[in-house]
Order: sequence, then C-alpha cells, then structure tokens
Amino acid sequence: MKKEIVFGLHPVIEAIKSGQEIDKILVQKQLNDQLKELLQLAHSYNVPIQKVPPEKLKRITGKNHQGVIALMSAITFASLDNVIQSAYQQGRDPFLLMCDHITDVRNLGAIARTAECAGVDALVLPATGSAQINSDTIKTSAGALNHLPVCRDRTLPMAAKFINNNGIPLVAITEKADQSIFDADLKGPVCLVVGSEEKGITKDLLKVSEQKLYIPMQGHIASLNVSVASAIVLYQVVKQRLS
Amino acid sequence: MKKEIVFGLHPVIEAIKSGQEIDKILVQKQLNDQLKELLQLAHSYNVPIQKVPPEKLKRITGKNHQGVIALMSAITFASLDNVIQSAYQQGRDPFLLMCDHITDVRNLGAIARTAECAGVDALVLPATGSAQINSDTIKTSAGALNHLPVCRDRTLPMAAKFINNNGIPLVAITEKADQSIFDADLKGPVCLVVGSEEKGITKDLLKVSEQKLYIPMQGHIASLNVSVASAIVLYQVVKQRLS
Repeated sequence: MKKEIVFGLHPVIEAIKSGQEIDKILVQKQLNDQLKELLQLAHSYNVPIQKVPPEKLKRITGKNHQGVIALMSAITFASLDNVIQSAYQQGRDPFLLMCDHITDVRNLGAIARTAECAGVDALVLPATGSAQINSDTIKTSAGALNHLPVCRDRTLPMAAKFINNNGIPLVAITEKADQSIFDADLKGPVCLVVGSEEKGITKDLLKVSEQKLYIPMQGHIASLNVSVASAIVLYQVVKQRLS
Repeated sequence: MKKEIVFGLHPVIEAIKSGQEIDKILVQKQLNDQLKELLQLAHSYNVPIQKVPPEKLKRITGKNHQGVIALMSAITFASLDNVIQSAYQQGRDPFLLMCDHITDVRNLGAIARTAECAGVDALVLPATGSAQINSDTIKTSAGALNHLPVCRDRTLPMAAKFINNNGIPLVAITEKADQSIFDADLKGPVCLVVGSEEKGITKDLLKVSEQKLYIPMQGHIASLNVSVASAIVLYQVVKQRLS
C-alpha cells in the first residue's frame, strides 16, 4: 500500500510533476500566489482539485500543510488505450465495466471483486464524483484491486467516446429499458455501464449506449443492490462467452 | 417492527407459551429451579437456548431480568410445508434458497434482498448458527424481509429431507463441483443451497444434494462474496424459467 497523503507546497508540486497517482488535491479556499501556481500545475496534469475550509485540512493533518494536501491514490491507474489494445492483441474481445458515480466505497469494492472473478479487463471510473480507491475499497474488494486494472478519465462521456471509437459498444443496465439482459447478445467486445442506486446512469451516457437492458424483477421490492446487479450482468457475459 | 427483547421469568414463559416468535433465549449459566423449568419448556417448544455469563444479560438490560432474556424475532417465520404447498397449488414450481450458516447479518440481508427480486418463495434457515433476522438484517434487505417468507427448521438436514420428500431437489453451489451453473438444468422445482464463505456447505447437506454446481472463475482471486454468488445463481434460475 502506498502512502495516503502528501502535504505542503513543494512536496505536492513534486508529487504532481513526478507523475505520482493523486486522487485529488485539497486546497484551502483563500488562495495565495503560490497556491494559485500549484493549481495551474495540477490542472495541466489533469489532477482533480477541491477547495475546502482550512479546518478540513487541519483535521487531516496537524502538521504544517501550507494550505494544500494531496490525497494519493492507493493504486496505479491504467491507461484505457493500453488495456483495450492489450486485449485485442491477445485475441480477446475487450470486456470493460464502467461505474457511473458509484459513491459508496463498499459497493465499489464489491463490484471490483466480482468484476475480477468475471474476467473483466478493467473498471472505468470518472476522475471526480466516484468513491475513492483507498485502503477500504481495496479491503472490500478482497484484494481484487491488486489485480484488476482501473482506468480513470476526466469524464465518463469522454471515456465512452474513446471506448466506442475502439469498436466496443456500451451496454447500459437500467430499469428504463425495453430489452432484458437475458435476450441480449453480449458476445464480442462490450463495456457494461452501471449507475448509482439513487441516480441511475446519467443521460449523457445513456445517449451513447448502443443497448439498454433491464434485469427482470419477480418480486415486490424491485430493487437490487448495484454490486449485485453488476454481478448478475457480468455473469451473463461470462455465460455467453463460455457457451 | 415488533419489540426486540422480553425479560424476566414470567414474561419469557408467557412469550414461549403464547407461540410468539423467539430467536433465542439467553439464560445465566447458574440455573435455579425456576430457570431449569423454563428451559424445559423452551426445549419442548423448539426455542433455541444459549447459556451466558450474567454480565452479558446485564449489558442487554439494566432492569431486573431474573437470569433470562428472550431475543424476539423481528419477523414471523413461515411454515415450510405451507410455502411449498402454496406454490404447488398456484401451479408454480417451488423455488427455495437454503442458507447454510450465513453468520453475517449484512450478507443475510443482501441475500434476502436479491432472493425477493428473483421471485424466491422462501429462505430456509437453521434455528441456530445463522445470523439473526433483526432490524439490521431487515434494513440491509431493503425491506425484502417484509415480503419474503423465511422458514426455520431445527437443523438444515431435517429441512432438506422434508424438501426432498416434497419433490424438490437440492442444488448445492460449491467450488467442489464438476458441473458449471451454466450447464445445469435449473427448471422445475429447486432448492438452491449456499454456504458461508469460510466453511462452505456442510457435508451432511452436500450428501443430500442432487446436483453440485460451481460458478466459473475467470480471474486470479477466485472468491465471490456469498450474496453475490447467490445472486448469480438465483438469476440463472430466473433466466431458465423465463425462457
């Protein structure tokens, strides 16, 4: 496990410049010139930034943080391009799982665990608005996140476009669908898209999804946990690939 | 939600005699004659008993418990016979899920949630050695336990015998199997059996299972959470019933 925070102006600047994986940078709301420069640097390296009250920084470390703390990523992110090309080169159809704003660390860890068991090539996450991959996520994943590549794009619609351009259709799992997961052809390259239980999948992603599929509900509550729903669909892909 | 505990000699005796649903009775280790009589009564009504240090009783209630506390069940258990006959009478093949010593409340709740969505007729649990159905289990189940019947037998092998005698084969989900869930015929009456992640399914239940099936693993960790494994198999049954 890598260290979880880096703080202070120069250490954070060094972390950015050396290409270390940063989940996000927390910076105090009142910016001085040095912090402004740091933020420009972070922006040019596509590192997510969040402005917070100074008390929040103090709660994270009692040491001299100089107004800035970088939350380091517990894993090394993979390049979506590499993951896709590597699958094709090995003669396999890429199998991706895009998680749209899953904010619960336990759900994200559980999804990663099942995805690894199902032979998914990579999780695709957005840079912001998603649960972080920290030590809790890795623990909930039962270690799957030590094996399963995770790709992060600035926004999921950007990632979706790249995935589509590489010959991989997006398949959205949503109750607002006319076709059941059991009637769909899920052979070939595929990027499944699952959304948060509260908000579902965002409109922009639904728009660029080639198929929208629902999971049949036989009872009264008609509400599956997102990690369970993911598991059911992931294993439909496994079934079709094995048959 | 019903009240969660009943304490004191006479209130507990009344709860037993009136047929209220009791998860188990906690009794202090040092028995007096009145407690001995109470235990005989509990035994004749098949109510599980656990002997505990007096400090444990004191932690549960500061009031005068007289050496005995009954943990009341948060739900009303259903009769396995009724559930099975009711399904047959409605022209449906019974669909049961037996949970073998699932000790984690969250897992049990998550399993119940998915089972309800998959149209399972009832969960089958053992009287002891399983997570309790309390307010946490109901919460984790997203309310499914308010709809889904739960049957409890003194031991699962006893329940298994009854289920088999009613024309319902047991299908054990275990890594120690030669056939994949995707190659099995799961149409018709079925009682799926899932076990705890640590211990798996007990030998006695494996012995009386007509089929043993594994879930194919495509990755490195080869370890699915029990509620996720249950979901994958439950929805194979749904798929076959819908096709």
